[in-house]
Amino acid sequence: MVSPVIQNLVNRLRRLPGIGTRSAERIVFHLMAAQGGEIAALADSLTELGERICTCGICGNLSDSDPCPVCGNPEREREIICVVEQVEDLYAIERSSQYRGLYHVLGGVLSPIAGIGPNELSIGKLVERVRHKGVRELIVATNTSTEGEATALYLVHVFKEDRVRLTRIAHGIPVGGHLSYVDSGTMAKALEGRRPLS
Amino acid sequence: MVSPVIQNLVNRLRRLPGIGTRSAERIVFHLMAAQGGEIAALADSLTELGERICTCGICGNLSDSDPCPVCGNPEREREIICVVEQVEDLYAIERSSQYRGLYHVLGGVLSPIAGIGPNELSIGKLVERVRHKGVRELIVATNTSTEGEATALYLVHVFKEDRVRLTRIAHGIPVGGHLSYVDSGTMAKALEGRRPLS
Repeated sequence: MVSPVIQNLVNRLRRLPGIGTRSAERIVFHLMAAQGGEIAALADSLTELGERICTCGICGNLSDSDPCPVCGNPEREREIICVVEQVEDLYAIERSSQYRGLYHVLGGVLSPIAGIGPNELSIGKLVERVRHKGVRELIVATNTSTEGEATALYLVHVFKEDRVRLTRIAHGIPVGGHLSYVDSGTMAKALEGRRPLS
Repeated sequence: MVSPVIQNLVNRLRRLPGIGTRSAERIVFHLMAAQGGEIAALADSLTELGERICTCGICGNLSDSDPCPVCGNPEREREIICVVEQVEDLYAIERSSQYRGLYHVLGGVLSPIAGIGPNELSIGKLVERVRHKGVRELIVATNTSTEGEATALYLVHVFKEDRVRLTRIAHGIPVGGHLSYVDSGTMAKALEGRRPLS
């Protein structure tokens, strides 16, 4: 007895990450009660995303321009590249407003089980950037998963003949985190990565 | 440095109930990675909702037809009307598949503080339905909030001269609920509403 138009939208919404059937229904009822063309505006934003988003030919970032706003920004330092697995990770780093270099999105991590080797990632393009663009430092910001660490080690292997400096972002106690709540893996990384007190 | 197209959609999504900034970003990244026109399909579903959903002239349900699928179904019992606050409540009752009568959506509850009196709710229309359509029973399914209870009592007052029977849906221990976890208000309702063991 549910209207097929409503059911159709509920079905589409609940396929999205973090949205279940109840949340999808709440959203649909919210939209039906909303004033001022909220539904049309949301539909337009989606259509715009679908039509205008493209992959940056240089770094693999997703945006509405190619090159992306990071690669196209003349104020970014071009000799440092931060290597991330996914575009989400790039956005997480941008949110900190601490990084002024460029990025390289691998598009995943090495995973023999999933059949993902170096050719499935944009490693060839990274090699090209490093060798032809005078890159001084590669900050490897893959995750601390087994695959993320393996990918970091693989990059060390790839660039062992090059003059580029490879660094790994620090892993340790989160700012504001209490030592007593930190898991043992993070604690091990925090101890291993200890730095001299000036 | 975030693409305005992405930011725009994130901003729209996070206004929806139950979605924060991080969930909105996850959804946008999911959509950008999705294959097979998922974005366009979602935009189309939204547009269809915005264009086709209308309010049922009889009961106040929202659907793509007027009368709605419930009022238009010849198999539903037409002498019983279940009175609910919102369309959401109607959907919750329909999910149980236990009710075969019609509905009446009040569009809210009486609330002097919020300035909602009987004229702001569709009570006049309900009176008309009861008096002209041979309604035998009104099941009052407003919530157990102060306003919901006051609205139920107000309906008793409105129909005290009519031959329609007014009933209230049962409140008590949820099925599968443990007595030890039940709040005292629900426990009081459960005791008050006790029924003879056959």
